[in-house]
Amino acid sequence: MDANIMDQTRPAIPTLGRYPQLDRVRAPHDLRNLSVEQLRQLADELRSETIDAVSTTGGHLGASLGVVELTVALHAVFDTPDDRVIWDVGHQAYPHKILTGRRERIRTLRQPGGLSGFTRRSESEYDPFGAAHSSTSISAGLGMAVAHHLRAEEDPSYRERNVIAVIGDGSISAGMAYEAMNNASHCGPGAERLIVVLNDNEMSIAPPVGAMSSYLSRLMSSRKFLSLRELAAKMAKRLPGRLERTAKKADEYARGIMTGGTLFEELGFYYVGPVDGHDMNQLVHILRNLRDAEDVGPVLLHVITEKGHGYKPAESAGDKYHAVSKFNVVTGEQKKGPSGPPSYTSVFAKELVRQAATDDKIVTITAAMPSGTGLDKFAKAYPDRFFDVGIAEQHAVTFAAGMATEGLRPFCAIYSSFLQRAYDQVMHDVVLQKLPVRFAIDRAGLVGADGATHAGSFDIAYLGCLPGITLMAPSTEVELMHMTATAIAFDEGPIGLRYPRGAGLGLALPAAGEVLEIGRGRIVREMARQSGPEQGGIAILSLGPRLEHALKAADMLAAHGLSPTVADARFAKPIDTALVEQLARNHAVLITIEEGSVGGFASFVMTHLARTGLLDRVRFRPMTLPDRFIDHNTQDAQYIEAGLDAAAITNTALEALGVGISMTQPLLKTANGPKS
Amino acid sequence: MDANIMDQTRPAIPTLGRYPQLDRVRAPHDLRNLSVEQLRQLADELRSETIDAVSTTGGHLGASLGVVELTVALHAVFDTPDDRVIWDVGHQAYPHKILTGRRERIRTLRQPGGLSGFTRRSESEYDPFGAAHSSTSISAGLGMAVAHHLRAEEDPSYRERNVIAVIGDGSISAGMAYEAMNNASHCGPGAERLIVVLNDNEMSIAPPVGAMSSYLSRLMSSRKFLSLRELAAKMAKRLPGRLERTAKKADEYARGIMTGGTLFEELGFYYVGPVDGHDMNQLVHILRNLRDAEDVGPVLLHVITEKGHGYKPAESAGDKYHAVSKFNVVTGEQKKGPSGPPSYTSVFAKELVRQAATDDKIVTITAAMPSGTGLDKFAKAYPDRFFDVGIAEQHAVTFAAGMATEGLRPFCAIYSSFLQRAYDQVMHDVVLQKLPVRFAIDRAGLVGADGATHAGSFDIAYLGCLPGITLMAPSTEVELMHMTATAIAFDEGPIGLRYPRGAGLGLALPAAGEVLEIGRGRIVREMARQSGPEQGGIAILSLGPRLEHALKAADMLAAHGLSPTVADARFAKPIDTALVEQLARNHAVLITIEEGSVGGFASFVMTHLARTGLLDRVRFRPMTLPDRFIDHNTQDAQYIEAGLDAAAITNTALEALGVGISMTQPLLKTANGPKS
Repeated sequence: MDANIMDQTRPAIPTLGRYPQLDRVRAPHDLRNLSVEQLRQLADELRSETIDAVSTTGGHLGASLGVVELTVALHAVFDTPDDRVIWDVGHQAYPHKILTGRRERIRTLRQPGGLSGFTRRSESEYDPFGAAHSSTSISAGLGMAVAHHLRAEEDPSYRERNVIAVIGDGSISAGMAYEAMNNASHCGPGAERLIVVLNDNEMSIAPPVGAMSSYLSRLMSSRKFLSLRELAAKMAKRLPGRLERTAKKADEYARGIMTGGTLFEELGFYYVGPVDGHDMNQLVHILRNLRDAEDVGPVLLHVITEKGHGYKPAESAGDKYHAVSKFNVVTGEQKKGPSGPPSYTSVFAKELVRQAATDDKIVTITAAMPSGTGLDKFAKAYPDRFFDVGIAEQHAVTFAAGMATEGLRPFCAIYSSFLQRAYDQVMHDVVLQKLPVRFAIDRAGLVGADGATHAGSFDIAYLGCLPGITLMAPSTEVELMHMTATAIAFDEGPIGLRYPRGAGLGLALPAAGEVLEIGRGRIVREMARQSGPEQGGIAILSLGPRLEHALKAADMLAAHGLSPTVADARFAKPIDTALVEQLARNHAVLITIEEGSVGGFASFVMTHLARTGLLDRVRFRPMTLPDRFIDHNTQDAQYIEAGLDAAAITNTALEALGVGISMTQPLLKTANGPKS
Repeated sequence: MDANIMDQTRPAIPTLGRYPQLDRVRAPHDLRNLSVEQLRQLADELRSETIDAVSTTGGHLGASLGVVELTVALHAVFDTPDDRVIWDVGHQAYPHKILTGRRERIRTLRQPGGLSGFTRRSESEYDPFGAAHSSTSISAGLGMAVAHHLRAEEDPSYRERNVIAVIGDGSISAGMAYEAMNNASHCGPGAERLIVVLNDNEMSIAPPVGAMSSYLSRLMSSRKFLSLRELAAKMAKRLPGRLERTAKKADEYARGIMTGGTLFEELGFYYVGPVDGHDMNQLVHILRNLRDAEDVGPVLLHVITEKGHGYKPAESAGDKYHAVSKFNVVTGEQKKGPSGPPSYTSVFAKELVRQAATDDKIVTITAAMPSGTGLDKFAKAYPDRFFDVGIAEQHAVTFAAGMATEGLRPFCAIYSSFLQRAYDQVMHDVVLQKLPVRFAIDRAGLVGADGATHAGSFDIAYLGCLPGITLMAPSTEVELMHMTATAIAFDEGPIGLRYPRGAGLGLALPAAGEVLEIGRGRIVREMARQSGPEQGGIAILSLGPRLEHALKAADMLAAHGLSPTVADARFAKPIDTALVEQLARNHAVLITIEEGSVGGFASFVMTHLARTGLLDRVRFRPMTLPDRFIDHNTQDAQYIEAGLDAAAITNTALEALGVGISMTQPLLKTANGPKS
């Protein structure tokens, strides 16, 4: 972005701790009598406070810094919370949280028990819609706007309410946002009070791709920012009383000639912009005009902002401080954690890059997450075989399916929770057609600070019910190498590998992954002689990285004189029926454990055992994520809360053996017990 | 559509049986030496053959009649199957099937064991991509086009291949199609050989809604059809050799001025159109030009067609014969089946309409299926509270979520298999926020002639794993009334009711539905004295309409001296733990049955019983849909194939009791047995 279009420069280092304006703000109401100059000062203070807070917590800083002025202007002009402001994705809402009664808690952001890193209805009445996945705000806002109209029959005050959806240029590229825009001008009364604020910073998580993004760039470069006078003239035509059909038509015609028509106008929006999103004076005036205008129809206000604006270290960083760890406010230097073992993500990417050197059929697809999925490394090595389709999971999957029909080996790398966006495409376009699309399902299981919205809790259930899919889960990073190799080699149909957020165990990595036999697990620890109170002993069948905890539990059980068999299922589907039957036959208790919800691996095993009659003879104990959402926390704490730690496994085993309370060794303490 | 823009009129009644051109076509190759006049005649014959075939089978006639000329022209011009032609949704592909080696089998369409009503890879090499859900073709085609480029390194012939995606004006409005278009001009080499044929008939299943639809109307009305001379001049500029950057720019500029810019051009497509889709001469010339042009980039060819074209009864019907039953070719009169009991769909709609009279918070949302969901009745009664958002399931759900935040009672009526399109929105926007959106999930379970693509097999699994959702399944149409009333009354969180395609049992309907207690099932038949070979007897716990068959099975088991308990679960979630525990305690065998996949109701019951230890004492037998896709057939035959009929239940019970072969009464015959 050109420096000259930003008319307000900020100090490189904010003045910490001196917040005369901000200190007076208890709620947005306190903004409404401030002058534009005071609002400017407030914005400066709000920016400093945001930087200071995130420096102690880490989080999504860049996006928040880009919308400081917009946040202040919105709350100053609109009557929140009666007017609804919806932040798409919600990670840019830190300044909004500070202004809406959460300043005292802002340094608990993303911390255990603290504020969410996204908007959340349960946190504040100023958060009318929770978010975290992209592109939902226009749909939700449209629903609210239409609802206001309907509710106005009983309470006329509803009719005056405005709904503002703030959405980024990356998010507006997604199909869902398009569906909402397509519907907006056609869904009936109420929709005219919807204002979509397009926060165009030419930078979402990665630089946005696709035609919409190019279009926005063209739009921006072809038009100068509106001056206030021009804007006033333009808006005046729209004010009630002066509205005449002919004038309106003429205006539309004139605008069409001037601009070549904008895509948003074709979609039925009244387009205003582009405007400088850091110019408080302009923002306040425009928003007031839009608030007071009538009969304008749904509005799209195109605001140009700079991600990381006003904080030099962020402005000059490649990713504009999209997501940062704790950092030094003065230098901007981010604190690095102790350098641990490589992450699952990086192990996957490395193995894929290695194998792609000799297999030119391997292609990779990401939906706007090249770095998060590790595919940025692949893109560097094989740019021709890497496809970032933008925030478009539905398209990503079917695009991969098309490639698979032509004999390529596509890896579609999408986080578990985002793959939910493409569920029908997985089922209808890939699985039903038995196409060998490889799904690299990162962030499976609980994910820590991002919380429930990003948890990959359901993929084993929602994918495992689909006939003919193969689904693997590595217990270690070495297994992930094998499974990556297995997925590459498997051309017979759809295959997925789900692996967690975070570091592996630090195992020595082999030179190459080995191709595994499909549907075969492995015994990791064989049951020794039984000296426990029950004959037959215990088997623990683990899917995925819980294996480490299953082995710990086996050690704990040894203290009870028990010596469980521990097996690594490797495959959630097809299950290793021989292994499962053997475990059921030779043990009194069979425990399964997985980093997933009910309806997943345990269900597949139980169903098989029930149909073979073996469930009648073994005490089966399924350990899954509980039937509730788990809030953000450390991953370890989340799994303890979920009752999936070693102590919980141990207790489940002892209880199943009926040796709980009566044992000399008492039951181990666990945060929430195995009941879930 | 104006009559005058259709320059070729067709006889009202086609000349059946005389097909001199068509009889000579064994494969598309046979079309490639025909003159335009011969192709015209072929199209006439093909239309007659299509009408005649569908008159004996029923099916999607209107869409197929609209694309007869286009089908002929595509196969005449392009080198199928090496060039890929993808039919979006695929229900317009009957003429395509006739031309591509399936004429002999065309009268088996949608019949048991016969041709699918959609395209299908396993049916023909001329079906490069299977379809049935809308808006997938551009993504798949783009994947193929890009793959061709990559594969050209080993086989240069790949580089010349064209990919044609034919998509309707309704389908192109969906978010997924937009995602693909947004990506097309930016996803790298190969994409320039993608031709999207927009088949604009202003009529999908219902009249399309939304801004894109209005836009297409404006586009059509503002431009006359291109003449061949204009087209030639236009295309000439694009031919290799003559291409100069300046000329190209000038051309773009000129087109921009003339047309005001088209939305498709903003999205990076080379727009050609509109052209008359029933003018063979024009179609052939344009397609040849597009085939031979280079460096044009992805193309969008806008073709205007008339649904039902060339068959008077279809042209004059309100729905243009979208989906017909068998009919009389001369009169067009459709054969009505024997008038049976009202469908689940209509019972739901009627109860909702009735209750909405006194509850103005009830609003309804459909994604382009007003008639299929029965909501057309609601729309008539309460137009202000009815919202057809177009083919946009993702938006539909989050739009409903927005309404729910404002205190309305939204019913989002979406078929089970289409709700897969909005899975993430259900999870992230509704369930996680505990918003009281009501999901009316029609077409749950197996659906008959539409086959596996439309089967609602997975919703219990993919919804049931979500914490806090309530999910009901009525066993009869009376229960559906109760559940509709229950959903209306339930403001505490998300609630779904899944019900099947087709008629209810013909029960007398009460004046009003009753609000059920959440999570409570009911015993339908109590176990009497046991005289069977095992103490404890059998319990059958049924979810949904399988109850009828469970009761039949109970009668069959009576012949064995057994007298099972039969219960109606009503709720898939939360399960009735008291009922389940009681059944497990008091019976030797507990069978669950549901019209859904593994990972669903049975899994929830087993998981609960396992955790309470009760699974250790009862022989549990889960009866679910098998882990494979079930082809189109009658619904009854499908359920027999799935092993979910009364005989299969009986056999499962007897086997669980261990009284199978040794019984005096032999095992009952069933098509595929209970193993699944």
